Amino acid sequence: MKKKYLLTPGPTPLPPEVLLSQAQPIIHHRTPDFQEIFKEVCEGLKVIFQTANDCFVLTSSGTGAMEAAVVNLASKGDTVLTVQGGKFGERWAEIAKAYGINAEVIDVEWGQAVDPKEIEKKLKANPKIKAVFTTLCETSTGVTTDIQAIGKIAKGAQAALVVDAISGLGAIDMKTDAWGVDICVSGSQKGLMLPPGLAFMSVSKKAWGIIDGNKAAAYYFNLKAAKKALDKFDTAFTPAITLVIALKEALKIMRKDGLENIFTRHKRLAVATRTAMKALGLELLSVDAASDAVTAVRVPEGIDGEKLVKTMRDQYGVTIAGGQAQLKGKIFRIAHMGFIEELDIIAGICCLEKVLTQMGYKFELGAGVRAAEEVFLQGE
Amino acid sequence: MKKKYLLTPGPTPLPPEVLLSQAQPIIHHRTPDFQEIFKEVCEGLKVIFQTANDCFVLTSSGTGAMEAAVVNLASKGDTVLTVQGGKFGERWAEIAKAYGINAEVIDVEWGQAVDPKEIEKKLKANPKIKAVFTTLCETSTGVTTDIQAIGKIAKGAQAALVVDAISGLGAIDMKTDAWGVDICVSGSQKGLMLPPGLAFMSVSKKAWGIIDGNKAAAYYFNLKAAKKALDKFDTAFTPAITLVIALKEALKIMRKDGLENIFTRHKRLAVATRTAMKALGLELLSVDAASDAVTAVRVPEGIDGEKLVKTMRDQYGVTIAGGQAQLKGKIFRIAHMGFIEELDIIAGICCLEKVLTQMGYKFELGAGVRAAEEVFLQGE
Repeated sequence: MKKKYLLTPGPTPLPPEVLLSQAQPIIHHRTPDFQEIFKEVCEGLKVIFQTANDCFVLTSSGTGAMEAAVVNLASKGDTVLTVQGGKFGERWAEIAKAYGINAEVIDVEWGQAVDPKEIEKKLKANPKIKAVFTTLCETSTGVTTDIQAIGKIAKGAQAALVVDAISGLGAIDMKTDAWGVDICVSGSQKGLMLPPGLAFMSVSKKAWGIIDGNKAAAYYFNLKAAKKALDKFDTAFTPAITLVIALKEALKIMRKDGLENIFTRHKRLAVATRTAMKALGLELLSVDAASDAVTAVRVPEGIDGEKLVKTMRDQYGVTIAGGQAQLKGKIFRIAHMGFIEELDIIAGICCLEKVLTQMGYKFELGAGVRAAEEVFLQGE
Repeated sequence: MKKKYLLTPGPTPLPPEVLLSQAQPIIHHRTPDFQEIFKEVCEGLKVIFQTANDCFVLTSSGTGAMEAAVVNLASKGDTVLTVQGGKFGERWAEIAKAYGINAEVIDVEWGQAVDPKEIEKKLKANPKIKAVFTTLCETSTGVTTDIQAIGKIAKGAQAALVVDAISGLGAIDMKTDAWGVDICVSGSQKGLMLPPGLAFMSVSKKAWGIIDGNKAAAYYFNLKAAKKALDKFDTAFTPAITLVIALKEALKIMRKDGLENIFTRHKRLAVATRTAMKALGLELLSVDAASDAVTAVRVPEGIDGEKLVKTMRDQYGVTIAGGQAQLKGKIFRIAHMGFIEELDIIAGICCLEKVLTQMGYKFELGAGVRAAEEVFLQGE
């Protein structure tokens, strides 16, 4: 027997009600039964997105909705602005490039957040920029961007503001309408406590103005077709029915909890995790923009970061994430997103302490767990 | 209580083992546990596709894989040949159009199959055609195309042969390699007895020759990226993990059954359905190319086809499909695809008899059920 504990920033663990809802006999998607479910989830997503605009459900990974945002807003030869301070921020420019769209790129050091003034400068220098593509929580570095500040800048520009909130939505605050976000993109397997396979996106009136004037190189990800279907509470193509049913269950749980309580819980888990890491003498990757959805920690000198993650997983059943691309082996990431509670974080820290000890790292055993306990006690 | 019976051509009913497999705790996709599952399903798909080539798993509806085939084989300004004799055949040209690819279209009367000679003529007239796009089983009309004959023609041409086997694969014979099919596309919610959300495609060496020389307008559906990932038994983007796990279960069942037995079962169910319809005095839409995956039946004069389907579903819990587009209200479709057995077909015919009687259609009550029973008895 090997009991497993999942602390990765997507997929995140699923509540049992959500898991079991997938095992119900399948129903056809063009029936009143499904239409009712679909209507409920589309309305429920608006609450999570904090928007009055339509929320679309696509059957794809989150990247599919990112592509939908890019190709519906811009065409070959157009220019867009992208911000990249990690693997997922880089994806915006990669998608643009695949379609012959010019991407002006703001490079940010991995572990740092973009300075909104950089965006302001670029937008002023080139008023023809069709859209600005940013990331709420950069999963690869555990950094949160100040979307509210960027929103104030974008409001005065022609460009639409697009936010990749794949990691983050339903975990940390994302006021789509209040912050002036035109397209907010998300995925199912993070804060929404679902398996991967669904992507979501909200689209503002300003975004539609640009989309309507653009000849999108898109079929499966064509938002005009999606809108035509959504107006009848339908999807343009066969949706992932079981995942939509699971979404209904997850939204029910989130509605009961309330967004504020959800954000407070994530904050508490994040503070406990960060405090614990410091108590173990470990250094966080991000000092002043650390995300409350996932914590990125530098691997201490002399320790093999990949072996650390592998041992925790293969030996003790605790799956955390390693570093990606240029951070491979240099950081590890503990997620506190979705269906995760205090004792799950304690379990993760405890296992980390065990393996770090075995690998020869020197610290006071139990110091991380105790530091987290103290944070949790203060929250009572 | 209303017990439900699903006889639609996608989604099709799911075996309980497949349903329940989705309810297992989620695992991370970049782990040895998932890699093992993914390896198994990629190998298992080759058996179903009857191919030695790589089989790709995409997280999307079947349309996503259709788009992947089009945009990876051809670019703006290129010419492709498409065959359309129904709603899904039309999709090939629609996708091409969205990307500025010229589609030469062979129009076939709905309910008929294309004459392979038409394709031969077109290919000879224009040797620059990049690919021919056809449909194994046109779900909207219940017609099967002679892919084997088309394959012989395509073998001698530059063009790649692409087959939409979304409805059909795992239900009727589809010899991808032996028939010379370069890209075979399928979906999860038909013969493979899964929920919708996954698309599959095999890609031949000849197809790769064209793909490698093409600058695809694609990111999420870029096959070169998919190939790079597949070589490490990985996916380019987060896959729909629970559906991949369900696929493993479905393939296990199919392996146990054996392809030949599966095809024989579908054939038996189709013959019984067609015989029953004739016994009720009903006319089949397709006379000489009727599919063994789904049967399309003309609604008899004086009967409201939409009301018939609606009453069977809302009053008696039996969901069959109506007609689409130009066939709306004019036909109904009974699927005998996937996890469907003799008694499910009997249930569907019985309910049809009941509602037809209530709607005033004159026939000998029980004649359809008896005709099907006779076919089933002969099979023993």
